[in-house]
Amino acid sequence: MKPDVLPFYALSELPKVGAQCHAWASDLFPICRSLTGPGVRHTLSYLKELMPLLKIRSAPSGTRAFDWEVPKEWRIRGARLIGPGNEIIADFANHNLHVVGYSVPVDQELDFEELQVHLHSLPELPDAIPYVTSYYEARWGFCLPDNKRRTLQPGRYRACIDSELVDGELNYGEIILPGETDLEILLSTYVCHPSMANNELSGPVVTIALARWLAGQRRRFTYRILFIPETIGAILYLSMHYEPMRARTIAGYVVTCVGDDRMYSFLPSRSGNTLADRAARLVLGEICPNYTTYTFLDRGSDERQYCSPGIDLPVASVMRSKYGCYPEYHSSLDDLSLITPAGLQGGFDAIAQCLQVIEVNHRWHATILGEPHLGKRGLYPTLSTRESAKHVRKVMNLLAYADGSVDFIDLCRASTVPWKEAASMLSTLYIAGLVEIVDDC
Amino acid sequence: MKPDVLPFYALSELPKVGAQCHAWASDLFPICRSLTGPGVRHTLSYLKELMPLLKIRSAPSGTRAFDWEVPKEWRIRGARLIGPGNEIIADFANHNLHVVGYSVPVDQELDFEELQVHLHSLPELPDAIPYVTSYYEARWGFCLPDNKRRTLQPGRYRACIDSELVDGELNYGEIILPGETDLEILLSTYVCHPSMANNELSGPVVTIALARWLAGQRRRFTYRILFIPETIGAILYLSMHYEPMRARTIAGYVVTCVGDDRMYSFLPSRSGNTLADRAARLVLGEICPNYTTYTFLDRGSDERQYCSPGIDLPVASVMRSKYGCYPEYHSSLDDLSLITPAGLQGGFDAIAQCLQVIEVNHRWHATILGEPHLGKRGLYPTLSTRESAKHVRKVMNLLAYADGSVDFIDLCRASTVPWKEAASMLSTLYIAGLVEIVDDC
Amino acid sequence: MKPDVLPFYALSELPKVGAQCHAWASDLFPICRSLTGPGVRHTLSYLKELMPLLKIRSAPSGTRAFDWEVPKEWRIRGARLIGPGNEIIADFANHNLHVVGYSVPVDQELDFEELQVHLHSLPELPDAIPYVTSYYEARWGFCLPDNKRRTLQPGRYRACIDSELVDGELNYGEIILPGETDLEILLSTYVCHPSMANNELSGPVVTIALARWLAGQRRRFTYRILFIPETIGAILYLSMHYEPMRARTIAGYVVTCVGDDRMYSFLPSRSGNTLADRAARLVLGEICPNYTTYTFLDRGSDERQYCSPGIDLPVASVMRSKYGCYPEYHSSLDDLSLITPAGLQGGFDAIAQCLQVIEVNHRWHATILGEPHLGKRGLYPTLSTRESAKHVRKVMNLLAYADGSVDFIDLCRASTVPWKEAASMLSTLYIAGLVEIVDDC
Repeated sequence: MKPDVLPFYALSELPKVGAQCHAWASDLFPICRSLTGPGVRHTLSYLKELMPLLKIRSAPSGTRAFDWEVPKEWRIRGARLIGPGNEIIADFANHNLHVVGYSVPVDQELDFEELQVHLHSLPELPDAIPYVTSYYEARWGFCLPDNKRRTLQPGRYRACIDSELVDGELNYGEIILPGETDLEILLSTYVCHPSMANNELSGPVVTIALARWLAGQRRRFTYRILFIPETIGAILYLSMHYEPMRARTIAGYVVTCVGDDRMYSFLPSRSGNTLADRAARLVLGEICPNYTTYTFLDRGSDERQYCSPGIDLPVASVMRSKYGCYPEYHSSLDDLSLITPAGLQGGFDAIAQCLQVIEVNHRWHATILGEPHLGKRGLYPTLSTRESAKHVRKVMNLLAYADGSVDFIDLCRASTVPWKEAASMLSTLYIAGLVEIVDDC
Repeated sequence: MKPDVLPFYALSELPKVGAQCHAWASDLFPICRSLTGPGVRHTLSYLKELMPLLKIRSAPSGTRAFDWEVPKEWRIRGARLIGPGNEIIADFANHNLHVVGYSVPVDQELDFEELQVHLHSLPELPDAIPYVTSYYEARWGFCLPDNKRRTLQPGRYRACIDSELVDGELNYGEIILPGETDLEILLSTYVCHPSMANNELSGPVVTIALARWLAGQRRRFTYRILFIPETIGAILYLSMHYEPMRARTIAGYVVTCVGDDRMYSFLPSRSGNTLADRAARLVLGEICPNYTTYTFLDRGSDERQYCSPGIDLPVASVMRSKYGCYPEYHSSLDDLSLITPAGLQGGFDAIAQCLQVIEVNHRWHATILGEPHLGKRGLYPTLSTRESAKHVRKVMNLLAYADGSVDFIDLCRASTVPWKEAASMLSTLYIAGLVEIVDDC
Repeated sequence: MKPDVLPFYALSELPKVGAQCHAWASDLFPICRSLTGPGVRHTLSYLKELMPLLKIRSAPSGTRAFDWEVPKEWRIRGARLIGPGNEIIADFANHNLHVVGYSVPVDQELDFEELQVHLHSLPELPDAIPYVTSYYEARWGFCLPDNKRRTLQPGRYRACIDSELVDGELNYGEIILPGETDLEILLSTYVCHPSMANNELSGPVVTIALARWLAGQRRRFTYRILFIPETIGAILYLSMHYEPMRARTIAGYVVTCVGDDRMYSFLPSRSGNTLADRAARLVLGEICPNYTTYTFLDRGSDERQYCSPGIDLPVASVMRSKYGCYPEYHSSLDDLSLITPAGLQGGFDAIAQCLQVIEVNHRWHATILGEPHLGKRGLYPTLSTRESAKHVRKVMNLLAYADGSVDFIDLCRASTVPWKEAASMLSTLYIAGLVEIVDDC
């Protein structure tokens, strides 16, 4: 019954999801998300349509979470900045980045000079509306292109923000896909930024595509897939679940900035050498050998929480253009034209391959002393060409290092055989009885 | 009685063997060796004349050996390819490379086009007869220079090969030189290629020279020295002896391609850091600091078997120009002009020095706290010159690292003292009571 | 009472000592020191005036010390080399380097040719008087500039050295500054060279400045501070104290060549990775990132004894221009103009910072799971600027690696926060209850 126990259930072809992901992102783009509020709920409901296993959870404002507590819920209905001639300078209805996130309500006239402290623009990106928030201090403000700002004249302005900060709830989504073991893989993305594409929507749409794909696979491991507001969401979730997560999580990835097609980036876990890191380096080294490597000191998303001392989850990030490192970051220029079907597909493929590698990451042991006689098993080419010689050489290299002391990742590294070829060859050798699995990772 | 137990019995001057080795190779060159058959026996008998301790062993065709079995014995008496005008195109009597090794008997007329599949030549080396074998599939064929092949005209050809494949035996040679301990050093070379020099005869002649030299030395270790057909010979021998070999072998070398004088090459064991590897890197680093280093993935001789999982012998290769990496490899251009007395001497010296290093590879410990007062023992120069200062500095560096935590090889590395100087200095210090041996390796 | 147990008692500003050190060196410069004799006693008495805790110890000639014994005491009252025309060629009264150290007494006429073996000069530094000694063989000699030597004419010369070698004593100084624990830090400098500045006086004057500074600090560790003749002094001292020193010493520095301002140099301990080495690399990496690194093979002072097998103290050297590596070394050109107040201050600062780092080298552990909410503790800037963001980022990086697995030195390395900033931040975090000390080093 060997084929039954053969663990290469993860070796199926990866689905084409790039165009679909882009369409989903287009649907979700206009929604005004923040840490809390209707925008998050709207987004999670949309995702639940795509993946009914997603559970939408909530925690009330004021809930304690480690050193933090859940903030008040922010609701915004509209906002306008009106100029001295009654012209509309910025309107929330046109772009939700025009309002500083978590702005307190205001309806006030004020002079040009008084207004300045409430305005935000980017001289270095004069056409972009910047993304600004003030989660933990009561403020209000408007964001606008610097080119626009520089046209403003002295006079009386009116600022109207129809928002409220109320005792409400924080929402997040959770999908649990049980596997053959309790050991878990974590995928975590965030749903707390308004209309931005690479540094927001690429994360949830690629993550939901991963969840849909994984749901249809035989899974050695259990998958915990989270859609949360950044920082407070991760802290809240960990405060409720960190003990079992710490005990069971063998690898995880923060899924963010996986939508453009300019490069691949890797940000390691704090320790830098977990299974998540090792799988990511193997996969990225094959997909894009000159991918950009950052250090944990460059971190900026929820690995800040997942990898913190005492939590210590093995969580890394595999990205396209990393947050903070591309010019359109945190502005209205990070829009739907920045992410592409090919870019999203690439982000999906990279993370999916990491998961495949982890699924097949067994320790292998050759069953035969000395080199096996491949010819008598039909595993040696009868027609000897350069390509067949290379193939046999790779098989021999895999067998040479299959001594049970290294896992699949290190076996690929030692033998220099690309991981998909290695997995396929080991599958063949396994059916032929020439290798066995000596230890699950 | 300290000088008695002093272990530097391996520090004698190395003998001059290069010219002798070349003469032996010239004698052995014409013999048509293969995996089995009279050529191997003829070769082994010649070597036994040089070293009567060599035992010629045999195993019948069909003997099981791990995943393999001993093939039928191949005997060839003659072979000719005759052209349309009755001219002789290729004659085994002129060069034994003209016949594909293990060719089945044939006596057949065939057209020019039918003939092509049975012909082998090298367009990139148009004057060379290539070396081709078909051990594990029934074939026949002729090998010839490409320049010759391109002169062939359409017409009827006659192929005559007077060979047979019969139930016979496989032969190999074995020398055991007992030492003061049961711990063993393995030397293994092969005797299965027809008339080629660097990639065949350099191995047996240098190995027999090593055996003759070792037989006259006081030996701390036991030496197991093998002359076998490649692959099947190693597999057969291991299948009979691998358990004691695995328990006792502390280091070993495959002796191959040790005859030209163009470079030195090193191919590590599978683990890459065994005593055999460490000794070889120390010695080659001194003999030829820019020696070429390969990886185990570049392997091609019997380290494939010796280092395989479950066998795990600490076996590396110290070579001159490595098989597969010089233009004349596996062709009639690998002839007696390619190997030189200087080249063979260099191959002998490199391996002999590795063995010397292993023989003296003790852990040393300084007996005196603080630096010793060398002057009062006559070990400090009375006339102080730059050279004597260097000498004393080296002695002090050896003593500084002689803390019993490292073996001789690492002591040489840490102190940067060349190994022969280090051994000589330690010998002096040992007699003076300033160092002691705290642990045999 | 947390501030009470807060261990940053070493974070005080370092005193300005450079000018003072140079003045002390000027006072001590004319004294004719050697291994033994009145010059050493005179020097130690001067230092005791500066630091009354210094104890002046002695051991009689002939005292056994490991493999050595204390030599006879050398006393010199005067010496002249007089030329054929009665002119004075070299006079000890003008410069004590004119006489070979430990010269036996002589009053003798001799020819120009006979004289040569007793003369020492440096053709490559023709204006310099070289520094020459003959401690362990009875000799006499004069040293003079090569320019002077080349003017000498044939004729009768008279050599007068009014010296004696008598059973006397060897003297050394010792300061013990008790700390809160018995664990010790060793500082060792030498007082055995005549009138030279960088390679002699910079060591004792910086060491006495360090002792005076340390005496006024709260000290976690006990300091053992030695002023000894090189080699025999270290061997003698170790022979009396090595067992408790080996048990208690956590780090140490040989203080030598700390007076010029041309560069910083580092010579590691034998093992190369002790606490002394790690602290020195951290400090020098911040003070002077392109400092010169030597290996233990370049050693030349009392680390030869302190690091010898069986003694194994964790002792390194932090220097300005290293002995043997600057042109004026061991000659009259190594004078008071070579060392500067800035150079001495730099040497003092570098070693003092190493001691500060060792004093604060605890293992830290964040007390809160996930990132702490710095804002509510007033530790997050209310006005967000680029500089404040960098500050918070550094705090977060310290906290991210404060998992109790690494000490302060490695925490600085992992977080890339300069050590003084790191110590200051940890102090703030400690008072806020966000970090705790989990293990003393």
